[in-house]
Amino acid sequence: MAQNDGFMAEALHEAVLAGQRDEIPVGAVLVLDGRIVARSGNRTRENNDPTAHAEMNVIREAARLLGQERLTGADLYVTLEPCAMCAAAISFARIRRLYYGAEDPKGGGVHHGGRFYAQTTCHHAPDVYSGIEERRSATVLRDFFQAKREPG
Amino acid sequence: MAQNDGFMAEALHEAVLAGQRDEIPVGAVLVLDGRIVARSGNRTRENNDPTAHAEMNVIREAARLLGQERLTGADLYVTLEPCAMCAAAISFARIRRLYYGAEDPKGGGVHHGGRFYAQTTCHHAPDVYSGIEERRSATVLRDFFQAKREPG
Repeated sequence: MAQNDGFMAEALHEAVLAGQRDEIPVGAVLVLDGRIVARSGNRTRENNDPTAHAEMNVIREAARLLGQERLTGADLYVTLEPCAMCAAAISFARIRRLYYGAEDPKGGGVHHGGRFYAQTTCHHAPDVYSGIEERRSATVLRDFFQAKREPG
Repeated sequence: MAQNDGFMAEALHEAVLAGQRDEIPVGAVLVLDGRIVARSGNRTRENNDPTAHAEMNVIREAARLLGQERLTGADLYVTLEPCAMCAAAISFARIRRLYYGAEDPKGGGVHHGGRFYAQTTCHHAPDVYSGIEERRSATVLRDFFQAKREPG
């Protein structure tokens, strides 16, 4: 499966940075030929863009840099199970492998909800590897929401 | 339901323009307070962006213009049933009503595939009105693909 934990560590770093910007702390990196070509955390608040999830940001950035719609052979590392929007975008971009950290029973679209890759309306599914650095990914999220709930 | 066929005609116009740019001819307009605030066709090729579906483009543009992530009270008109990616983005943007033209059994995510709005992972569903200008929407798509198949 050629997984590289270093890449998930980089995605986790992006998640932490997102949290520091008061964004939901999810991070992603996009890897092509063993090299990170795009990295991002959530930027929905900063960009006033409800679609600016970490996965969308790295896909759009990599496609822009490479000058092509399809990122065939690219691998995506993200700290949380992608939602339906991102799962579909990963398919459209022809991502080869998807590595993700924590499961997202409330909003996930890979192993929860509409399970996009299992539908006949899905025309390309990446290989999916879940549970990579799961505990750290979940902790970053839990700490963020816990801090939100505590009275300042 | 306060539907306005004039808005779907505008979305159809965007679909035709998209086809002329050699993009899959789907068009959308986003309406707030009875006024079109964003309009677009597919721009995946032009922008080298696999996420640049018509719906995504108008949501991102409207959110940018309004300086807010959520488009509460906005209505979206699109010529084709949204895919899973766009269906979820419509939910995240808190779109009030979704009007669409043709059904998309092969790639739709509203009444086909993962049926995003019917999932417990969906936390806001728009009111959905389908079959608006369905025949014209489907014809634009069919003519486009037919022309592609014909030897030049």
